[in-house]
Amino acid sequence: MEAIRWTEDRLELLDQTRLPHEEIWNTYHAAAEVAAAIRDMKVRGAPAIGTSGAFGVAMEAHRFAGDASIRERVREAISTLRTARPTAVNLNWAMDRMEEVIAQTSDDALLPAKLYAKALQIAEDDVRINRAIGDVGASLFGDHVRILTHCNTGSLATTGYGTALGVIRSLHAQGQLAHVYADETRPYLQGARLTAFELLHEGIPFDIITDSMAGHLMQRGMVDAVVVGADRVARNGDTANKIGTYALAVLAGYHDIPFYVAAPVSTLDLATTSGVDIPIEERNSDEVTQIFGQQIAPVGATALHPAFDVTPGRLITGIITEHGVARYPYEHSLAQHVKGEKSE
Amino acid sequence: MEAIRWTEDRLELLDQTRLPHEEIWNTYHAAAEVAAAIRDMKVRGAPAIGTSGAFGVAMEAHRFAGDASIRERVREAISTLRTARPTAVNLNWAMDRMEEVIAQTSDDALLPAKLYAKALQIAEDDVRINRAIGDVGASLFGDHVRILTHCNTGSLATTGYGTALGVIRSLHAQGQLAHVYADETRPYLQGARLTAFELLHEGIPFDIITDSMAGHLMQRGMVDAVVVGADRVARNGDTANKIGTYALAVLAGYHDIPFYVAAPVSTLDLATTSGVDIPIEERNSDEVTQIFGQQIAPVGATALHPAFDVTPGRLITGIITEHGVARYPYEHSLAQHVKGEKSE
Repeated sequence: MEAIRWTEDRLELLDQTRLPHEEIWNTYHAAAEVAAAIRDMKVRGAPAIGTSGAFGVAMEAHRFAGDASIRERVREAISTLRTARPTAVNLNWAMDRMEEVIAQTSDDALLPAKLYAKALQIAEDDVRINRAIGDVGASLFGDHVRILTHCNTGSLATTGYGTALGVIRSLHAQGQLAHVYADETRPYLQGARLTAFELLHEGIPFDIITDSMAGHLMQRGMVDAVVVGADRVARNGDTANKIGTYALAVLAGYHDIPFYVAAPVSTLDLATTSGVDIPIEERNSDEVTQIFGQQIAPVGATALHPAFDVTPGRLITGIITEHGVARYPYEHSLAQHVKGEKSE
Repeated sequence: MEAIRWTEDRLELLDQTRLPHEEIWNTYHAAAEVAAAIRDMKVRGAPAIGTSGAFGVAMEAHRFAGDASIRERVREAISTLRTARPTAVNLNWAMDRMEEVIAQTSDDALLPAKLYAKALQIAEDDVRINRAIGDVGASLFGDHVRILTHCNTGSLATTGYGTALGVIRSLHAQGQLAHVYADETRPYLQGARLTAFELLHEGIPFDIITDSMAGHLMQRGMVDAVVVGADRVARNGDTANKIGTYALAVLAGYHDIPFYVAAPVSTLDLATTSGVDIPIEERNSDEVTQIFGQQIAPVGATALHPAFDVTPGRLITGIITEHGVARYPYEHSLAQHVKGEKSE
């Protein structure tokens, strides 16, 4: 399964707002179009929007190849893309990589090829890194394990394989997995729509639950561990992720159930001291009061719509990256991961 | 606002599965039809199904007035109604009251009038009791209070006024209320559909939130208290209520936010020792994977659907009834409320 396809002059994205009922691929030729697709959540998931953004920049260089304004155009594209979604840091991380390439390339004529090569590398690294995360994560558990997860962190949220869903995939491949409980993840229903789609495709045993059922399942002893992804991890381990993650962490702590975050190093943001410094995107009220364009609440009723929340590092049992498992307190262990040093 | 209307030979119920977009009243002439309406959640809310069941029995007596089989028919109606929904105890409580009338009425000719009079009394008492609950509840709080609530516990869930929403109504009437956060309450969306409908109608300031946002709001200091209703309260205070209530109680405890249950004495079930003895209704998977008949999950995906959960008494700050506020440990205080003795 894949949700992102590319060539030098175009990016194709599987429209995630239409899944699971319609598999529609949209084609983009300019960076501003890619930024709009990210804003509209046609592509979502922190690693997937990083990769998409990188190809958006490369495409813009291709579009202005031979044009005197190419360097300026590419820099504008990077600025536009950076603001598309504020919470996830991978998009900024990918834009930083593209800026490094621009700084290192004095010959404008080489920019298209160099930027495309970097985007390709980001995409290929992401799949390899996700497989490493999956293997590290699976090594934490024994047999017959029942995992609860939130939102979608699979092939659709990354360039391929997945972060938290990568751990689940690896557990399944190694015969360790008994069952998955997939939070439906209101309001966008990424769990019921996208995670269920991937799990069904892979033949992994699962049930969808409403977000409100997670505590009840933990109380009944039906959950061995919670594994979620991340949109940004601050230096102290505070983790921004899809709204509802924080409540799961509190509930897991109350029930003595391990709570793991799975994310590539590109999601770690050591420049952000703690969770209070992570901007939380507030989206439109209509995305809560309507489902697939159908009004569910009475007309005139308003809803809050913080798209993310922040889970304090002390509630997180471990942060799984491609370099191992970081443990609380996170300042030191996360810095090691960023340097590429293995832990555990 | 009202959701139940009656005469001796018919019961009219506002179809709660169609609100807030369509206000459709259905008319019922037989107890078995009322039982089906309860099963299908056209009428829901523990006190409302108690009242509806009582009128269902009275209607059955009217239907068989003068028939030699009247006593048997009415007893059959009571048996059918008792099984319509297993978790809420008010329906059983109302059926017990109707059986007492039957036992006390030796003349079959008097059964229709006696049973109708008892149903009327149950309905009238319910409104009066809810107003008392509202006043008791409001007395617990100061000014500018921000209340988070779950599901629908208002006029639509009772014969009128409401339990937890009755407390909110009284707070608003007395100028103490700053804001309400209404959990949308998946999967049936009673909060987004019904509570929002009532709050909008009353001009009470509120926002809908997805169930997954409650923890985030508490973390941000936006919630002063949680007030919910109940479907059954066991002798030790363990409380069955709409799925998601238990998670709210754990989250409230973690954040040192008071967590109150508001329910009439008819919801207290001293015959049930603790929460483990309360049957939890498991409803259909389709009610999670479809919203308003629209498939949201991929075809072939299954969901769990426990309709209720149980909150241990020790997580409940107080249980508000028409007789006052019962406090932990609940064995003694709830028994006093059942005897009609005031507390606090």
